[in-house]
Amino acid sequence: MKYRNLGKNLLAGLAISASGSAIAAGSAVDELLKALYQNGTIDKATYELVQKAAKAEDEQNRTQIREISVAESHKAAGDALAKSKAGKPTVTMGGKIQLDAGAVNEDIAAHNSGTEIRRARFFAKGTLDKDWGYKLQYEFASTKEANIDGILDAYIDYKPLNIRIGHFEEPFSLQNMTSDKYVTFTERAMSNIFTEGRNIGIQHIRTGDNWMIAGGIFGDGRSSSSETTDEGWGVSARGTIAPVNTENQKLHLGLSLAQRYTGDDGELNYSDRPETHITSKKIVSTGNIKAHGLTRGALEAAFVSGPWHTAAEYYHTDIDRNDAGLSDLTFTGYYVETGLFLTNDQMNYSGKGGKFGKISPNGDNGAWQIAARLSNIDLNDADITGGEADSLTLGLNWFATPSIRFSANYVNILDVDGGITTTPGDNPEAFTLRSQVAF
Amino acid sequence: MKYRNLGKNLLAGLAISASGSAIAAGSAVDELLKALYQNGTIDKATYELVQKAAKAEDEQNRTQIREISVAESHKAAGDALAKSKAGKPTVTMGGKIQLDAGAVNEDIAAHNSGTEIRRARFFAKGTLDKDWGYKLQYEFASTKEANIDGILDAYIDYKPLNIRIGHFEEPFSLQNMTSDKYVTFTERAMSNIFTEGRNIGIQHIRTGDNWMIAGGIFGDGRSSSSETTDEGWGVSARGTIAPVNTENQKLHLGLSLAQRYTGDDGELNYSDRPETHITSKKIVSTGNIKAHGLTRGALEAAFVSGPWHTAAEYYHTDIDRNDAGLSDLTFTGYYVETGLFLTNDQMNYSGKGGKFGKISPNGDNGAWQIAARLSNIDLNDADITGGEADSLTLGLNWFATPSIRFSANYVNILDVDGGITTTPGDNPEAFTLRSQVAF
Amino acid sequence: MKYRNLGKNLLAGLAISASGSAIAAGSAVDELLKALYQNGTIDKATYELVQKAAKAEDEQNRTQIREISVAESHKAAGDALAKSKAGKPTVTMGGKIQLDAGAVNEDIAAHNSGTEIRRARFFAKGTLDKDWGYKLQYEFASTKEANIDGILDAYIDYKPLNIRIGHFEEPFSLQNMTSDKYVTFTERAMSNIFTEGRNIGIQHIRTGDNWMIAGGIFGDGRSSSSETTDEGWGVSARGTIAPVNTENQKLHLGLSLAQRYTGDDGELNYSDRPETHITSKKIVSTGNIKAHGLTRGALEAAFVSGPWHTAAEYYHTDIDRNDAGLSDLTFTGYYVETGLFLTNDQMNYSGKGGKFGKISPNGDNGAWQIAARLSNIDLNDADITGGEADSLTLGLNWFATPSIRFSANYVNILDVDGGITTTPGDNPEAFTLRSQVAF
Repeated sequence: MKYRNLGKNLLAGLAISASGSAIAAGSAVDELLKALYQNGTIDKATYELVQKAAKAEDEQNRTQIREISVAESHKAAGDALAKSKAGKPTVTMGGKIQLDAGAVNEDIAAHNSGTEIRRARFFAKGTLDKDWGYKLQYEFASTKEANIDGILDAYIDYKPLNIRIGHFEEPFSLQNMTSDKYVTFTERAMSNIFTEGRNIGIQHIRTGDNWMIAGGIFGDGRSSSSETTDEGWGVSARGTIAPVNTENQKLHLGLSLAQRYTGDDGELNYSDRPETHITSKKIVSTGNIKAHGLTRGALEAAFVSGPWHTAAEYYHTDIDRNDAGLSDLTFTGYYVETGLFLTNDQMNYSGKGGKFGKISPNGDNGAWQIAARLSNIDLNDADITGGEADSLTLGLNWFATPSIRFSANYVNILDVDGGITTTPGDNPEAFTLRSQVAF
Repeated sequence: MKYRNLGKNLLAGLAISASGSAIAAGSAVDELLKALYQNGTIDKATYELVQKAAKAEDEQNRTQIREISVAESHKAAGDALAKSKAGKPTVTMGGKIQLDAGAVNEDIAAHNSGTEIRRARFFAKGTLDKDWGYKLQYEFASTKEANIDGILDAYIDYKPLNIRIGHFEEPFSLQNMTSDKYVTFTERAMSNIFTEGRNIGIQHIRTGDNWMIAGGIFGDGRSSSSETTDEGWGVSARGTIAPVNTENQKLHLGLSLAQRYTGDDGELNYSDRPETHITSKKIVSTGNIKAHGLTRGALEAAFVSGPWHTAAEYYHTDIDRNDAGLSDLTFTGYYVETGLFLTNDQMNYSGKGGKFGKISPNGDNGAWQIAARLSNIDLNDADITGGEADSLTLGLNWFATPSIRFSANYVNILDVDGGITTTPGDNPEAFTLRSQVAF
Repeated sequence: MKYRNLGKNLLAGLAISASGSAIAAGSAVDELLKALYQNGTIDKATYELVQKAAKAEDEQNRTQIREISVAESHKAAGDALAKSKAGKPTVTMGGKIQLDAGAVNEDIAAHNSGTEIRRARFFAKGTLDKDWGYKLQYEFASTKEANIDGILDAYIDYKPLNIRIGHFEEPFSLQNMTSDKYVTFTERAMSNIFTEGRNIGIQHIRTGDNWMIAGGIFGDGRSSSSETTDEGWGVSARGTIAPVNTENQKLHLGLSLAQRYTGDDGELNYSDRPETHITSKKIVSTGNIKAHGLTRGALEAAFVSGPWHTAAEYYHTDIDRNDAGLSDLTFTGYYVETGLFLTNDQMNYSGKGGKFGKISPNGDNGAWQIAARLSNIDLNDADITGGEADSLTLGLNWFATPSIRFSANYVNILDVDGGITTTPGDNPEAFTLRSQVAF
């Protein structure tokens, strides 16, 4: 019989295959093919071509298996990661350290020179059940000295309605809303003391690609430290628009307004250092002023064109002392700053946030920026002589990476009229070096 | 010859296949089939049906490859995740923020109204080498005001022996052991001042499905602030049982006992606010009492039935003033509370923990609960007139998600007899709004 | 016709297959085989053997699919994990808790006994853009008492140049550079008060396998608390070498040198507790000394041989009072300690760091160590009688796991000459128990 020995042959073939590392895919087709060729059902050409097809198919199968495997694996790995986090509120943690070394070249008043941890903050933030967010941020530096609890942000966001409840910055002023990590100089201009800072309140915000408007109602501070006097409260609102908002050029215009009732036995107090934090000595200071409330505003403008930017703000504060039978007071301040990147970099303006953000250097050697600022504050009005000061600041920034920044600032207090020093014309100079990491 | 052109035909077929995006699995069988059909070995019906079978098989193969891939991928992804964490002590981090706004409708004594960060806590906890656990929790809010270090939990668990060493809550009282995140009202009942709070000690705990018993020996506070006087120490024990512990109904009974020696120059001081933290003014206060030690107990009962619950505790404190040659003092307090979920939700009672826990709303709109509480504290005894106060609290809770809770509380202090106000019958009312996030 | 019924048969076969859970891979070959066998093209032996080959091939295919899947899956999972972390600065978090219970057997001066949280620290550290590193560490314990901000480490590393900028330990002394988690006794020897601790500065470090040298320039403390007086500054350097550095034996030699200018109105103050922190009462104390600056050095030696180790340091401090018209002062101190592991463990000396590190027990029952220390401090010189004290400490350590440690220390203050007690020869004893977790 023509297929007498087929069985034996196939058995031998299988044995050989089994002793190899793997039976090739398509081996059954191979065996059948061999049998059909040997018993004359198919010719040699057919035998060889089908064999070739089987081999190609085998190769193809492996490739396909690998492709399916890769696709499925990546999906599965993503799923497993997501699952390992799912159902749990997300907690992202980070913080920053700012280290200062500074010297004050004293003129009339004595000042401190030395080193300090300017800021050391840690935060946790995250998202809960999709619609809710939160942030808790704490300041570890200088809380003893300032005799405050270091809680900064402590809020809850309800995203569908753009509502924020908690302890956070009242919306006011460009330099104030811009993080201290990204402001141009080591300290904000003196006029920043006219901003309210953080209070406990509720805020609504609406944003477009080149505008934002935020408004809220706020209580007074982070703790209820008083036993018997009611706290103050106020309202703040800020609107900004960027009529020019191209990749290369940005024009920012903004207006901030706020009103505040200062609570039972209300008192206000304005003072500031010479635009370096290394000394605790204030150069302007009103002392305590009995007041019923205040109204204030800030006009903001900024322009970015390629590596160059300029920004300016004007602050106006009216203090209502009517209850104390005294005339109202008006304090003002302003600054104009300009900066130029020496590298192929740009200030990171956000039309949606109406403020400047993180600088991620384009080149391998980081971003280098030079800058200058003229700054004024006037705390002299009526019977109050808190002092008027003008200053000129020159700055050099090196953004080594998106996380690491070094800055050198020279501040020349051009003149102090009134304020802490009875001798007019105090003219100190300050030099500050900052190292900063944000993680 | 009948199969003369088979080779050419097959070659053409392969070429076509190769020019396509992929050679179909089973193409070798296809080719063989075609050859056998063309040379008359098989008929048309066989040809078509085997072709159909090949196609189905091919489909099947892909599905199977996909299934195996998915299974293996998930296992692999899980392994990779586990491996990335293995060998390292686990560190889980979380915290909470409680934001309050409150107003006190004063009667005789003046109180504060305003806003505050009630609690802002951050913790790290985890497991080490399987048998050991730890927790470190810090309170960032109100530490300046209270002039304390904010360390709350700071302990080590040895799980095989159910032993805890460190700074943690002495086991005492249902409302005290229940987290402030999950108590029914924004503040615990006034009588909670009779609990000891956290001290440094060592505790053993045993639990069953519907019972627990815990006991420990504890030192005094978190720091050794004194130079020359020895600290006090005490023992605390708590046992609870849930004779009814079905899915729908839970009956809780508990007993807490504690004794404490108050240390060299021992002094005790009991006082409390009007069940809102927004005012710092106390409505009852004993002032400092020289004492040698104290013994106290609490009787606990609670019942949960579907959406409804009620809970009550009675506190008894005996103060030993024998050393000072004065008669002993007895102070007492109690509360009765009841709550009703308007949604399909229930208080989360744990028989193992003998306390209430996290509320995870069943519906998409969260869980809504109304509640009322009657509360009493009596700090009048012998020569001490710390005051006796009764209060009625009405509460509304919205557990928006397992992590987000809003509460509104109205507290009516029905009467204050003695205490801080010499005029009897002070009757303030307090309204508190709380926003809470736990992450 | 011989293949008349083939079609029907095959159809029936397909129907059966389809009704089963899956069409077996290779079913097309099976069907073809059956058809060829039934129409007599192949014999029974061939039929069965090809069937067997098809089955084996099928099995083989599944195995291969699984193998490819597993390989691809693991790669994919690794990729997904890496991708989920990539581009973000790394943040590793950890901390430690040290819980003490202690009693002082008073002799002349009164001391405190009790419990305290000795240390409760939390840190975040990580790497940024490969070249940069950072660490922020905070101490939560005892900051109120000590009236300090709790910031410990707060620095930035630039790895390519081995430079560290920020607030960190000045390089000085073996016991001071060794973490308090790994020093042999619960408190470092009294002479550790001669080390500078943490300041803000910049440091360069170079290391080999058995040597290190570090030097830096440092300001004064973490904050600029003064208004008008300039801070002090100093330089520190430390070099160590391990001439013997085998697996079993290590010989450490080190030299630390530091100079410091104490700033405007410079004052120094040296004092210490009786080598337990449970009492705040100091046994030696110079009070404030007006000084212009100081120079100091420490000589370090240590030897490890199997389970046994010994270590000794001598400290010498010269205080420059010339500006105050008074003679210079010299204060000294030393300690000699020795320890023996009762288990198969060894002190973890690092030649690269020039200090001792983490102890990871070899056995399942942890590492047990006994130790003794002789310690001296001499704060008597010229007109200053801060006191001279000698102490003997006996210690027992159980390193339960790499993260959990328990220690018991007995300290016998052999004698106090001068210092806080005017009656000479105060001889208190202290017993301290510590529980420690590091995560």
